[in-house]
Amino acid sequence: MTTSTIAGKSNAFRPISASCMAEIRDIVSESCLLTDESALREHGHDETEDLLYLPEAVALPGSTAEVSALMKICYRERIPVTVRGGGSGLAGGALPVKGGLVISMKRFDRILHIDERNFQVSTQPGVVTETLQNTLKEMGLFYPPDPSSRGWSFIGGNVSTNAGGPKAVKYGVVKDHVLNLEVVLPNGEIIWTGSNTLKNSTGYNLTQLLVGSEGTLGVVTQIVLKLQPYPTHNLLMLVPFHSAESACAAVAAIFQSGVTPSGLEFMERNAIDWAVRYVGETPVPIREEDAAHLLIEVDGFHIDSLYADCETITTVLERYDCGEIFFADDEATKTSLWKLRRNVGQAVKSNSIYKEEDTVVPRAELPFLLKKVKDTGSKYGFESVCYGHAGDGNLHVNILRGDLSEEAWNIGVTKGIREIFKYVKSVGGTISGEHGIGLVQRPYLDIVFSKTEMKLMRQIKKVFDPRGILNPGKIL
Amino acid sequence: MTTSTIAGKSNAFRPISASCMAEIRDIVSESCLLTDESALREHGHDETEDLLYLPEAVALPGSTAEVSALMKICYRERIPVTVRGGGSGLAGGALPVKGGLVISMKRFDRILHIDERNFQVSTQPGVVTETLQNTLKEMGLFYPPDPSSRGWSFIGGNVSTNAGGPKAVKYGVVKDHVLNLEVVLPNGEIIWTGSNTLKNSTGYNLTQLLVGSEGTLGVVTQIVLKLQPYPTHNLLMLVPFHSAESACAAVAAIFQSGVTPSGLEFMERNAIDWAVRYVGETPVPIREEDAAHLLIEVDGFHIDSLYADCETITTVLERYDCGEIFFADDEATKTSLWKLRRNVGQAVKSNSIYKEEDTVVPRAELPFLLKKVKDTGSKYGFESVCYGHAGDGNLHVNILRGDLSEEAWNIGVTKGIREIFKYVKSVGGTISGEHGIGLVQRPYLDIVFSKTEMKLMRQIKKVFDPRGILNPGKIL
Repeated sequence: MTTSTIAGKSNAFRPISASCMAEIRDIVSESCLLTDESALREHGHDETEDLLYLPEAVALPGSTAEVSALMKICYRERIPVTVRGGGSGLAGGALPVKGGLVISMKRFDRILHIDERNFQVSTQPGVVTETLQNTLKEMGLFYPPDPSSRGWSFIGGNVSTNAGGPKAVKYGVVKDHVLNLEVVLPNGEIIWTGSNTLKNSTGYNLTQLLVGSEGTLGVVTQIVLKLQPYPTHNLLMLVPFHSAESACAAVAAIFQSGVTPSGLEFMERNAIDWAVRYVGETPVPIREEDAAHLLIEVDGFHIDSLYADCETITTVLERYDCGEIFFADDEATKTSLWKLRRNVGQAVKSNSIYKEEDTVVPRAELPFLLKKVKDTGSKYGFESVCYGHAGDGNLHVNILRGDLSEEAWNIGVTKGIREIFKYVKSVGGTISGEHGIGLVQRPYLDIVFSKTEMKLMRQIKKVFDPRGILNPGKIL
Repeated sequence: MTTSTIAGKSNAFRPISASCMAEIRDIVSESCLLTDESALREHGHDETEDLLYLPEAVALPGSTAEVSALMKICYRERIPVTVRGGGSGLAGGALPVKGGLVISMKRFDRILHIDERNFQVSTQPGVVTETLQNTLKEMGLFYPPDPSSRGWSFIGGNVSTNAGGPKAVKYGVVKDHVLNLEVVLPNGEIIWTGSNTLKNSTGYNLTQLLVGSEGTLGVVTQIVLKLQPYPTHNLLMLVPFHSAESACAAVAAIFQSGVTPSGLEFMERNAIDWAVRYVGETPVPIREEDAAHLLIEVDGFHIDSLYADCETITTVLERYDCGEIFFADDEATKTSLWKLRRNVGQAVKSNSIYKEEDTVVPRAELPFLLKKVKDTGSKYGFESVCYGHAGDGNLHVNILRGDLSEEAWNIGVTKGIREIFKYVKSVGGTISGEHGIGLVQRPYLDIVFSKTEMKLMRQIKKVFDPRGILNPGKIL
């Protein structure tokens, strides 16, 4: 057994020794331990900027027992472990910044039990979110959280970041749908966090502590989710506005009318332009005078009620100087409108390196946040593309690298982000609505948490992971 | 300063010395420090069985700063502190079992800010839940969680137990509505647990850790709740069944039809009989052959949709051998039906000492749970009254003292409860759905949690409360 350490301190991390590597190979088998350069590179990045950190090895366990055995070795040897889902993260949560072992959950790809009587599903964490949703939909069952990455992100990754998506505005985020989790602790012990029930007042809520903890407290190996009947109808409209602020201001007014849309998305002009170029088509012409759009969906079980809801919404919209409302009148048109919205992030990414901020505020603050972002961009000389889940007050701010100098990008932009985040905090908001803190938002945590709050979180981390081996360098 | 200790150990609790009492008096003023016998008795019990534990003193602070100052003294002096809301608890969570200081939140009775633009309310914890709900309702705003005790329980107490009530089946429990909490830690430090936003992926979810922690981690001094528009319509029906098992079996079938009621309550025959006697009236005759009833409510914004939902429900009910369905056709009738349901607990209490169990299972398991309860009663010779939130799988089991001997009550019934709880656990359920663990459910925690899970919770408690002064003897 090696006694060398990465940082030279006895309680610091150690590299994976040859004998440990052999032990790991014994657990997962030869074919499920990857150490070649291309595999390490593949597991060294996610969707966060252009960041790359190589692990020493990648293990693909196939069972909870295997994860437990791997954790026991890593705990004993103080080997850093980073758990990886689909790799779609935008905050660097899956980056193995301290090297060590990456545990890929790719082989945890089975939906274990769909309980139609109780509207529940037990699933492994490596199932692609959209696959899970489509399987359930065929049985008339609905699991609402639908991040834009749902086509390749894993449900386990969604749990780890407490993901959201457009449907969150009506149905809530991932945390609102997780009933129970099987978790392997850093020392290899296995727990369940709750019960398979809709209500639970039995002890501390470990389930909600694990959801959104970004793989820093334990390895989720099984997930029990609450389901509901799949709505039989929906209506979708795209609404242009002559000013982005008007679009944002209309958002709170829609809710005040008594209607709760199942989607209420905002795109400023350059967001939709880039999405149209990237996707290559749009079902509706974008006019010269359109400064921003809202994409509004209502869903339910009674089509007449939905028509009535749309009427209420359009009455509200007229007060906010909107342009001509476009109703999607068939499935194909709905799909292409959603495709535009879902591809904004990828479209921007394909054009420029960017930092994606995930600001969230009480929804009526949205127009003021948008103005603050633009003013800050002017001050520090950066361009931004703003869009997101306006109904939740969740504005994604993509700050473009463009032709900014190294200094402007690393220092000026960082200053600007701090100013935006301080503003967000001052109006009751926070710095991540659904992406998580991971690696890249960590430097800003002091804006939202006091020293006492940080200390509590650090101590909670220590309760679960006294050796700090699990996803080190993240959140705290 | 006294150095005597209650248990004789240096790290054990200490009684409140004369000098400490003077310090406390200085903080809250003479009139808000109670030490007379009647005040101590009044604050020594809640609604749990016939239990009474006297504190040494009762303080009524009026601000967060005062709570902080009180906690600093108690922390320094190792004085046990029990925080008290309305005193409606059914698990003994507010009983000062180690004596010391009771902090009554009675003076925290202000609704601080109703934010209509963002559908949020900031409130102090000592506001009576129903008062809060009625104030909001006048503005068209809806805070759904409505425990039967809402007429006298405090919203802070509801947060501490993660309370539910009939509306939880559609709208979720308290945890689903709490956005942010101001909390005084045992050492007097003040934190906020989250942000005033609908989504939050920023650090560990301290908000959800505090909700349902039954006053063992911190003193909640301010609460930010999420609201929604108040539904404009509702329909209510009372449905008799020839067998209690059929009534329970119909519950899951209703949800499978695609309708989500806003209330789906179960009462077995003796529950409704006692409620009728206690309340003194019923809007509908209870017939000889009625073995159980379901009380079913639907609500929403479109009355036609609700009629359609009721039609769907009645079609389902006919498959389960129900009797003649009674529709409440005016507000007065609705109110008296709900009054019956809400008074079952008090009705039983007025007749006999009882232990109230708060079992919860996946809802389709309900008929089997009911059978298990009755079989266990036959085995150990106890009578039970069963009712509760069937839509959530949450069955209240009131076990009557009746004329049971001391031994049968303390040993036989306890054995029976263990058997019921083990069954509940075996079908994915847990031992408290909305009342909490408090004092009286503590002996059963080993049934639902492993040693590792218990250890994690104990360590979390220690992070917040290293000296164990806050609500000692509860949960863990």
